[in-house]
Amino acid sequence: MKALGLTYVRVGEFAWSRFEPAPGHYDFGWFDDALDILTAAGLKVVIGTPTATPPKWLVDRHPDMLAVDPQTGRTRGFGSRRHYDFSSEAYLEACRGIVTALADRYGQHPGVVGWQTDNELCCHDTTLSASPVARDAFRVWLKARYGDVATLNAAWGNVFWSMEYRSFDEIELPVGAVTETSPAHRMAWRRFSSDQVVRFHRAQLDILRPRSPGRFITHNFIPMNETGVDNHALAAGLDFASYDNYPLGRTDLRMARAPAEAFRPWMRTGHPDFAAFFFDQTRGLAPGAFWIMEQQPGPVNWAAHNPRPAPGMVRLWTLEAFAHGAAVVSYFRWRQAPFAQEQMHAGLLRPDSREAAAWPEVEAVVRDLAALDLDAVPRGRARVALVVDVEAQWLGEIERQGRSYDATEILLAWYRALRGLGLDVDFIAPDGDPADHALILAPSVAMPAEGLAERLSANGATVLFGPRSGAKTADVTLPEGLPPGPLRSALPIHVLSVETLRPGCEGEIRWNGRTYASGTWREELAVSDGAEILARYEDDTPALVRMGAVHYLATLTDDAFLSDLFEDLATAAGLAPMRLPESLRLCRRGDLVFALNYADMPQAAPVPEGAEFRLGGPVVGPRDLSVWRLPRNSD
Amino acid sequence: MKALGLTYVRVGEFAWSRFEPAPGHYDFGWFDDALDILTAAGLKVVIGTPTATPPKWLVDRHPDMLAVDPQTGRTRGFGSRRHYDFSSEAYLEACRGIVTALADRYGQHPGVVGWQTDNELCCHDTTLSASPVARDAFRVWLKARYGDVATLNAAWGNVFWSMEYRSFDEIELPVGAVTETSPAHRMAWRRFSSDQVVRFHRAQLDILRPRSPGRFITHNFIPMNETGVDNHALAAGLDFASYDNYPLGRTDLRMARAPAEAFRPWMRTGHPDFAAFFFDQTRGLAPGAFWIMEQQPGPVNWAAHNPRPAPGMVRLWTLEAFAHGAAVVSYFRWRQAPFAQEQMHAGLLRPDSREAAAWPEVEAVVRDLAALDLDAVPRGRARVALVVDVEAQWLGEIERQGRSYDATEILLAWYRALRGLGLDVDFIAPDGDPADHALILAPSVAMPAEGLAERLSANGATVLFGPRSGAKTADVTLPEGLPPGPLRSALPIHVLSVETLRPGCEGEIRWNGRTYASGTWREELAVSDGAEILARYEDDTPALVRMGAVHYLATLTDDAFLSDLFEDLATAAGLAPMRLPESLRLCRRGDLVFALNYADMPQAAPVPEGAEFRLGGPVVGPRDLSVWRLPRNSD
Amino acid sequence: MKALGLTYVRVGEFAWSRFEPAPGHYDFGWFDDALDILTAAGLKVVIGTPTATPPKWLVDRHPDMLAVDPQTGRTRGFGSRRHYDFSSEAYLEACRGIVTALADRYGQHPGVVGWQTDNELCCHDTTLSASPVARDAFRVWLKARYGDVATLNAAWGNVFWSMEYRSFDEIELPVGAVTETSPAHRMAWRRFSSDQVVRFHRAQLDILRPRSPGRFITHNFIPMNETGVDNHALAAGLDFASYDNYPLGRTDLRMARAPAEAFRPWMRTGHPDFAAFFFDQTRGLAPGAFWIMEQQPGPVNWAAHNPRPAPGMVRLWTLEAFAHGAAVVSYFRWRQAPFAQEQMHAGLLRPDSREAAAWPEVEAVVRDLAALDLDAVPRGRARVALVVDVEAQWLGEIERQGRSYDATEILLAWYRALRGLGLDVDFIAPDGDPADHALILAPSVAMPAEGLAERLSANGATVLFGPRSGAKTADVTLPEGLPPGPLRSALPIHVLSVETLRPGCEGEIRWNGRTYASGTWREELAVSDGAEILARYEDDTPALVRMGAVHYLATLTDDAFLSDLFEDLATAAGLAPMRLPESLRLCRRGDLVFALNYADMPQAAPVPEGAEFRLGGPVVGPRDLSVWRLPRNSD
Repeated sequence: MKALGLTYVRVGEFAWSRFEPAPGHYDFGWFDDALDILTAAGLKVVIGTPTATPPKWLVDRHPDMLAVDPQTGRTRGFGSRRHYDFSSEAYLEACRGIVTALADRYGQHPGVVGWQTDNELCCHDTTLSASPVARDAFRVWLKARYGDVATLNAAWGNVFWSMEYRSFDEIELPVGAVTETSPAHRMAWRRFSSDQVVRFHRAQLDILRPRSPGRFITHNFIPMNETGVDNHALAAGLDFASYDNYPLGRTDLRMARAPAEAFRPWMRTGHPDFAAFFFDQTRGLAPGAFWIMEQQPGPVNWAAHNPRPAPGMVRLWTLEAFAHGAAVVSYFRWRQAPFAQEQMHAGLLRPDSREAAAWPEVEAVVRDLAALDLDAVPRGRARVALVVDVEAQWLGEIERQGRSYDATEILLAWYRALRGLGLDVDFIAPDGDPADHALILAPSVAMPAEGLAERLSANGATVLFGPRSGAKTADVTLPEGLPPGPLRSALPIHVLSVETLRPGCEGEIRWNGRTYASGTWREELAVSDGAEILARYEDDTPALVRMGAVHYLATLTDDAFLSDLFEDLATAAGLAPMRLPESLRLCRRGDLVFALNYADMPQAAPVPEGAEFRLGGPVVGPRDLSVWRLPRNSD
Repeated sequence: MKALGLTYVRVGEFAWSRFEPAPGHYDFGWFDDALDILTAAGLKVVIGTPTATPPKWLVDRHPDMLAVDPQTGRTRGFGSRRHYDFSSEAYLEACRGIVTALADRYGQHPGVVGWQTDNELCCHDTTLSASPVARDAFRVWLKARYGDVATLNAAWGNVFWSMEYRSFDEIELPVGAVTETSPAHRMAWRRFSSDQVVRFHRAQLDILRPRSPGRFITHNFIPMNETGVDNHALAAGLDFASYDNYPLGRTDLRMARAPAEAFRPWMRTGHPDFAAFFFDQTRGLAPGAFWIMEQQPGPVNWAAHNPRPAPGMVRLWTLEAFAHGAAVVSYFRWRQAPFAQEQMHAGLLRPDSREAAAWPEVEAVVRDLAALDLDAVPRGRARVALVVDVEAQWLGEIERQGRSYDATEILLAWYRALRGLGLDVDFIAPDGDPADHALILAPSVAMPAEGLAERLSANGATVLFGPRSGAKTADVTLPEGLPPGPLRSALPIHVLSVETLRPGCEGEIRWNGRTYASGTWREELAVSDGAEILARYEDDTPALVRMGAVHYLATLTDDAFLSDLFEDLATAAGLAPMRLPESLRLCRRGDLVFALNYADMPQAAPVPEGAEFRLGGPVVGPRDLSVWRLPRNSD
Repeated sequence: MKALGLTYVRVGEFAWSRFEPAPGHYDFGWFDDALDILTAAGLKVVIGTPTATPPKWLVDRHPDMLAVDPQTGRTRGFGSRRHYDFSSEAYLEACRGIVTALADRYGQHPGVVGWQTDNELCCHDTTLSASPVARDAFRVWLKARYGDVATLNAAWGNVFWSMEYRSFDEIELPVGAVTETSPAHRMAWRRFSSDQVVRFHRAQLDILRPRSPGRFITHNFIPMNETGVDNHALAAGLDFASYDNYPLGRTDLRMARAPAEAFRPWMRTGHPDFAAFFFDQTRGLAPGAFWIMEQQPGPVNWAAHNPRPAPGMVRLWTLEAFAHGAAVVSYFRWRQAPFAQEQMHAGLLRPDSREAAAWPEVEAVVRDLAALDLDAVPRGRARVALVVDVEAQWLGEIERQGRSYDATEILLAWYRALRGLGLDVDFIAPDGDPADHALILAPSVAMPAEGLAERLSANGATVLFGPRSGAKTADVTLPEGLPPGPLRSALPIHVLSVETLRPGCEGEIRWNGRTYASGTWREELAVSDGAEILARYEDDTPALVRMGAVHYLATLTDDAFLSDLFEDLATAAGLAPMRLPESLRLCRRGDLVFALNYADMPQAAPVPEGAEFRLGGPVVGPRDLSVWRLPRNSD
């Protein structure tokens, strides 16, 4: 490891059965040896707490620590990982035990520089559980939130369909009913479930902080569009957030239904916007730079198909992460394990301990990093921000008004359009800090706070809200006076009705003399005086409205419209958008500009005059990158 | 409501938790007030019994009132609606309580003109339950039907696969077995389940009739092809049947797999034959005119996608219902509720109590109805009847000999062909009254009574049976002497064998010098002397046979054949079929002819000379209608 | 039966409820009568033990005899057949009882010539069960195999994800976990489950053998690709294996997703290679000729669609079975039953006891067989062998590295390519006898024994291993020194990595100046000196390697490559391949050559000079066959 130029090693994250082979009997000798060897070699150690893999003896002692699948009602048992319920007090207590033992023993170990909590919390659809312990905890949570059951009944509209409760103890989890349950009920369950994860996670921070002073604590996050957890809340208290970057597997899964010809160009590279999409989101979770805790170094084992990366991609992905602000990129795994579930998951070493295909690419990365000296170049804030709202995502899953509505696909489409214009993007939560951003785009903020539009635009930013913004109150009712509720103070519109359209049955949106597709979700707007109608539907009713700096787009559209509109808004906001081919992406870190070429042929980069190259040159090689320093006085 | 011109208001259908907020504690004051206000305003009140939504306290008292999903074995719990088992005696007793309380209090209220029992019985796939109470009731039902278990064993053919029982207590529900269960067993379960619904429903009639003299009782039916309940039996004892008309949602669901270009023309109008298909079926369930208890006034919330109706369609759907014989069309809902499951379901008022899009169309309906004076024009009987057989539907679901066989699609295809010929259609059950009908078409009567063909043709009607008619005995065995069993007395044929073909692999049927597709279900016929072979398969064997007025079609075919054949049969029966474009439909109510244009452009109607227009003129506007009075001496 | 020319009758296979109508009360009188009638008529009787259909009273006595569905956790109940768990001791004891009673009574009956054990063991996905009795038996099996739990932990790599056990009693079945369970765990469960079936079956042999001397014992096998049972192990102790041949149903299911135009040619004939594929596999299970215990004589009831066979096909299928070495072909069923689950399954007689469509074809078979005198012509061994490895099949299902990888489709593709070259094929297990074979093809031997390659090639055979051969150790770990593990002693290669590719995203393999598709599964090879690289990938790395007679193909390919490669290898091995159209197949039995024409038009057969025709002539009629005797000195 040292010879290759690695700096950090993460260890221990699944080793509970070795740390505590029998209840209360700890065995740390082998781990002491490992840490000593790593430390002696000058490597810095990150310890992962092993709470993602409780041993069998613990499950047998506390069978109610297992979660229950909400779809089937079946208990999710031992035999893989993540077999626990976030609401189990017994399991939480056991976690406190093992984490305390580790923190006490290694918290001040000279080789230990930081901690990873658990591992990929909520992976494998484990956020929601229909267990009795989850139900009981839900009732307690509801009582704490609503106080008395009459308030809950009123807030949820339980008079509808005689859903009224006489006490909190009558309330079940919203699963297994005859037809759809109340959206307020389901939203509460989503909030509760997210809170339970945060609470579970916080318990580890509370143990580690005092016992391991001067060390960082991080977590390797699964994107919140997959877990349904509020990652912003989950990240609170961490020093920085981490991400596990598997571009090929994610591309295979996300493009599962794409035709072969659309998928093929990215089969061995990953789609040019998918890794960055999650880099930028991870960076937004916590202050400080983010880490890649696991970087795919070759074919993996868990996607539907698992191709080999194209030559050069391991280096390109790594440097792309740094371009987006990563402080560290760590590969998973060091050596391919010859046994168990991940034996087909490549490492930097093969199972026979020889160098695997990615080895020379990592050697090249070490050289590149020396040339770039990135520690001296902080990423800085982007001029464009995308507002990502976990409640909008929950709402999209709860209220299936149009089955083709997919909050993540919408967020990704907006991001792709921005990246195709060469713009850097920060992600912020609706209550995040809008300073520094000249253009703020909110695909959907479902339940905006009062004054949100004013706050976002206060510093002069151009602001655009997408459809379904201000659609609901916190308890998923229609806001008084119709949507967009609190946004109306900035923009005098009313959403009179909504229609959803099947793919292939789109209508039109007309803007600047051009016609685009408008589909999936379309809102009928009434616009009061003072607002300007910028675009209209095929029936001439308003589809895009502006008042001052605040815009509202009432419909989902095609990608061409997003590109044209965002180009227009960005230009007006004083930015310099440019049109990039799909396979070429730009990214700025401080005064360095990275041009990343995902294509299998060279491409010329849009290099400004006076640029000073740190890597590569004006023509970027296939699956290669160039990095230049901006000349003075350039944006 | 009064100002708009409405006459009737339905109330109370989901209000159990307000009527009886705690066990045995009734609170009717608020409902008294509501009825008084409505009555004072001159509105007529229909009360819905609230038995579709038992409150949580009742479920907690009688957990065994919940049904069990036959596919998964999971109990279907509280949280939405229809969470009850038709076989639960405890629940039936509770229903008797609440219905009696309502009937006692409001049965003779001056403003109350009628009752709706429960709401959409069996919606959300609730006919079948795999609960212990259902199993116990099934055993009792079997004992009553078969007397002793040896009779049942013989009738079902239980010697096959050692399925013989030694007592009724050994018999389980036909669910969860290793592979397919006996078709006789499943048919018995379907009959039992249908009977349980009828029994449950009848209990409310028995309470309401004596307590509410002079008031009507109706029910808003879900089509029996969805519920699998014998709606003819369920309607017995009602004054008339009602239907809830949601053309867009039904079109979205029924055309779920249609390509976008086939779906798009009807996305905002509904398919021109889908609403009428259910109007005509509902009219056939009970004597008297039918009601539309719920008419969609805008986008709804429950289909996969929920578009806005095209302008004019709310008026057109409403008047189409009247054309088909409706006495009343009631809109659902009055005001869009801002909370709970249906908050995205449009009403005549928006959630902010302003007039929603449908309002002016309802105003127009009020004017149209004044012009038409339909109370003086009874619908009358159609000259063409379609025989609809719930047992054929059950058989098609139980015996999956060809997976693409779909009894409802077949019935709909025959109906569409007739409507495309401008013919009015009545639906009758196999034991219904064939008088008045000149042409009687039975797509499939699975288990015909002796003499059915003779009875249907007794008054001179031309009769056509489709394939799979006479296919089985009542216990789903092959009839003695092969199919079509009892039909053979009218038509000397034997069905020697059956084959089913995959879509896209059709054979041919040749008739009148033309060739059509024959697929999905094809029977090999032996034809005895005296019968005439009218059409043949590609191998020259008989496919369509006639003896006297009775015809037998041995195969499913394409739509072109149905149109050509029905045109021929109708002409021979003395009717005057004409070819209509798919988007134009005719409908006669008494001496009024309605021409309904579903297209987005004007169409000329086939107006006879001397017609006297009541609405519109010879060219029907887009999404509009014309109504004329027939001249004397015209058909 | 006798008049038609039948010889054998199978009876009793589902008659438990008649043999033992109540616990311990036997009734054999009716069966005595049946056997006496059959024997008196000169028919030979095969008795099926009725253990596939335990009666309800037995299930009620031993509810834990029911299996549990591993996917859903739901008990699979009474109501059809095969409702039992192979691990149930109570059920095994009951089976011993009924089989002993039958064997004692009929074992030496003069009319009884043999026995069929149970019926289609493991049909309807019954091999695997997640019941408590299966779990307990699994623990016992594991203890017997591994001795102590530390050995098991090490062998399975349970240190991964803290899956270590402290005792065998902690081990669950690998079902219902949060994400994928250990492949070693699942492989052990597959082996255990297969062993349980063998053990269950063996108990019947142990009873029948001593009680029925001189009679044969057989079983009608379901192909092991469907059951996941090691049919070679299951067949041990049988006199010969039997197969139930339903070409139309199998073609419908296997081509379920094929476009209509690809399916249509075989809709009424079955695919020309599907029946033979299973004939040749069945012949390989046990010494002696095989039987067709059930031959489809018309449309059946269980496929998605059930067409009628094309005229001539019942005869052609029958004679094709004889061509492949069958000793007997028995039709199922004699008379179509008018009741229960199989009432739409054709017989030789219709339900009204008249001759059904297949009757004259069976009459023709009787004449054909008289002309051919096949008893004097043993099939003999084929010069080509396909190695079929149940562990490779299990591995393909357990390790889903590429979702489109399908071990059966691969085996079938190799078989089709060989049959299209006019070659006869034997199937052997990896430990089977390679003598007589000049060309031995192993699509995948997952866990080869030491020296396998040397043993297969010892007699001078050309040997080809396909990709994923030598991929794993017995406990599903990567072999020491990388794959192909023990094959490396014959072929100095290392599989450095594997990639899997989505359909439609294939790469290339280049061989002999031509380019073919390489997809789904591709291995990166390192080749040491001494081995010859015969074909390469698009990046010029090795894809097909040879050392001496042993070849290794590192990738799955298209059909064209298989045909070209096999033609080349066969020619080099001294065989005489020829290219046949897809609808024409050749088959040799002794010195007789059968040419079978599946097309609907005549085809010329490749008749060598001097051939002496026994049936037909040089031009084979549509759905007909010709049979000639080879001239001396010809191959």
